[in-house]
Amino acid sequence: MPADLTDVLRRLPDALVAEAAELDRTDPLAHYTGEFVQHAEVTAYLDGNSLGRPLVRTGEHLRAFVDEEWGGRLIRAWDEKWFDQPLEIGDLLGRTVLGAAPGQVAIGDSTTVMLYKLVRAAVAARPGRCVIVADTENFPTDRYIVDAVAKEAGLTVRWISPDPAAGVHLDEVTAALTEDTALVLVSHIAYKSAYIADLPAITAAAHDAGALVLWDLCHSAGAIEIDLDTADVDLAVGCTYKYLNGGPGAPAFGYVASRLQDRLEQPITGWMGHADPFSMGPDYQAAPGIRRLISGTPPILGMLPVRDMLEVIADATMAEVRAKSVRLTEFAVKVADEGLAPYGVGVASPRDPGVRGGHITIEHERMREVVAELWKRGVIPDFRPPRGLRAGLSPLSTRFSEVALAFAHVADVLDG
Amino acid sequence: MPADLTDVLRRLPDALVAEAAELDRTDPLAHYTGEFVQHAEVTAYLDGNSLGRPLVRTGEHLRAFVDEEWGGRLIRAWDEKWFDQPLEIGDLLGRTVLGAAPGQVAIGDSTTVMLYKLVRAAVAARPGRCVIVADTENFPTDRYIVDAVAKEAGLTVRWISPDPAAGVHLDEVTAALTEDTALVLVSHIAYKSAYIADLPAITAAAHDAGALVLWDLCHSAGAIEIDLDTADVDLAVGCTYKYLNGGPGAPAFGYVASRLQDRLEQPITGWMGHADPFSMGPDYQAAPGIRRLISGTPPILGMLPVRDMLEVIADATMAEVRAKSVRLTEFAVKVADEGLAPYGVGVASPRDPGVRGGHITIEHERMREVVAELWKRGVIPDFRPPRGLRAGLSPLSTRFSEVALAFAHVADVLDG
Repeated sequence: MPADLTDVLRRLPDALVAEAAELDRTDPLAHYTGEFVQHAEVTAYLDGNSLGRPLVRTGEHLRAFVDEEWGGRLIRAWDEKWFDQPLEIGDLLGRTVLGAAPGQVAIGDSTTVMLYKLVRAAVAARPGRCVIVADTENFPTDRYIVDAVAKEAGLTVRWISPDPAAGVHLDEVTAALTEDTALVLVSHIAYKSAYIADLPAITAAAHDAGALVLWDLCHSAGAIEIDLDTADVDLAVGCTYKYLNGGPGAPAFGYVASRLQDRLEQPITGWMGHADPFSMGPDYQAAPGIRRLISGTPPILGMLPVRDMLEVIADATMAEVRAKSVRLTEFAVKVADEGLAPYGVGVASPRDPGVRGGHITIEHERMREVVAELWKRGVIPDFRPPRGLRAGLSPLSTRFSEVALAFAHVADVLDG
Repeated sequence: MPADLTDVLRRLPDALVAEAAELDRTDPLAHYTGEFVQHAEVTAYLDGNSLGRPLVRTGEHLRAFVDEEWGGRLIRAWDEKWFDQPLEIGDLLGRTVLGAAPGQVAIGDSTTVMLYKLVRAAVAARPGRCVIVADTENFPTDRYIVDAVAKEAGLTVRWISPDPAAGVHLDEVTAALTEDTALVLVSHIAYKSAYIADLPAITAAAHDAGALVLWDLCHSAGAIEIDLDTADVDLAVGCTYKYLNGGPGAPAFGYVASRLQDRLEQPITGWMGHADPFSMGPDYQAAPGIRRLISGTPPILGMLPVRDMLEVIADATMAEVRAKSVRLTEFAVKVADEGLAPYGVGVASPRDPGVRGGHITIEHERMREVVAELWKRGVIPDFRPPRGLRAGLSPLSTRFSEVALAFAHVADVLDG
């Protein structure tokens, strides 16, 4: 490893280094980067789309929660606050990030479990239809869950195989839709390429065929503007530990459009989704509204970091967050083209920022080894087999100079 | 409300107040009570079986986790530590509390979701058998989940109706078992009465009939000694926010005996239970061993308070914890008999400490109103409809004088 940072930055053309500094200087959101924990062991962090950095305030909030809210109110806090907290933070998420009116979002479970509940509920809501449309480039859990639900419910999965360097196109979905289609499951942003699927058009196409649509928002929530209500989306699921900075294994969220809620029956019928949980009666009666999406006791502690981040996003606004995200990925593509292409690195994400989310993937045959060396240097992107470096550029915590420095290290390792 | 504590304690016979002080003075575990957060808003806490008090160290541990482990190691911590954490804390729980050898316990999900997965897996492992045996006094979630799984799998539930003031007896289970029984689901300790079911004998009876048995340990884990391996238990589930002090909505645990694991197929097949999660391949292949019980990304933050408490329990030992628990409930029964019976209060828990867990329920027709007033005074038991005050006496955090003071307040309200 070179003696100092200046040496590494020499791997890039001077103009790119200067441009990074200028972009940071003129970034209207620059002051937010200081709100996140900076640690001496981290040289550059490009994995905010796997695990967002913590906000500085979150550590102190958790300590205070233990001493005051948990330690002081104890069980009384369930009545006073916690019972409604999954829905209140859900509403905050809906308003700030999802374009969802109140009463349609609940926080809880892992993304996998929330996805399972929504896929089960969706196919049950379309009796007589025997096909789930999904795509082979979706995240593994999504594929495993539709396979599993299809098997147990006697349905089949009709697989779309999109271009891995892009993502699911409207015409591919339209071609797969029949009158037998119960559900379409697509990721809003592809986890490898960052391609943005056409959410409004695919939703409308599914509805034209009489199917429901379930959007996986894991890579879009907090990265791009979303308007679920306007697009008339039925169901959505997402995680909160990427661009929502909830911490490792933070709880998921689920969205169910108001118009569907009273017909929706999810399979994991726990006491916290009951219409009257403390009656403890003999039979399950689903709560009205979005509460029925809750199964067991909600993870109160785990959703507090998410609330901290949602308050920061509300302050910044998603329009500004997305604008910075585009500037970040545009700059990253430029550095890849002008600084890394000479080493044989290619860009495997869309070049049109209009269909590109908050991360970019660059490829090289030695990338597994490169990322391993980067991690030792405190330069932290993701490796995605077989040859992808995925750089997640979390808009509120990432500096342009951090991107330049990280990619300079890539050049340095490849030239080493 | 009386002017000072001395006034309230006059509601009890002097001998009981003196006995509480003497029991505290001679309690070998007394020093542990100072390890838990004490708050000015809490006069007496008798609800450790709904939500345990936090350990003082937990607040600082969480703050440090945010700043160092999450903020410093970031995504690298998954490789370094977090990936194995649900199983490592599971092993610690197994060794310290459950009598389970390593590799049989995983932490994650809500209790409801974990229960759903295990009930589904159990009935799938007994094909051709069409009955689940369960009891009407079990916790609502347990009843709702067996109902739901039975309905979706085309099974029936054979309901045992035990005496509500006691719990499920061996002979009631034996009478319900047939060659059609796939699964027996019983709570180890009844959530209302605190009756301890005969875990080894009921397990053996279920096995004699060729059925599997699933124990709900929510009210026994951390309250009484448990030895799952010796009793040859098949499956168990429990929560960590009661006597394991994990905080509101802390993740559940699931136990699957080693001998069953490779035949066990749970339905929520997420990437974190895959044999090779980061291959991200097309098909789900369940991991060997207990890892297959994991579905989505495990809640790392939420399991840290549990680890703190398990370390304290390991230091104290469950034998000593149970011994104090018996002293606490014996004393509480005595105070109820000698101090509250004159006001018409009755004891609705077993009088034999050998079949009584860590809480006792006392009853009075005005109990709803009494508990509401107690909460205002910072005296915090649970109300359980229609007329029960449930006093959960968490052994490591509860003082005998706290029990005396709380019950003196009950007398004070009833006489007010």
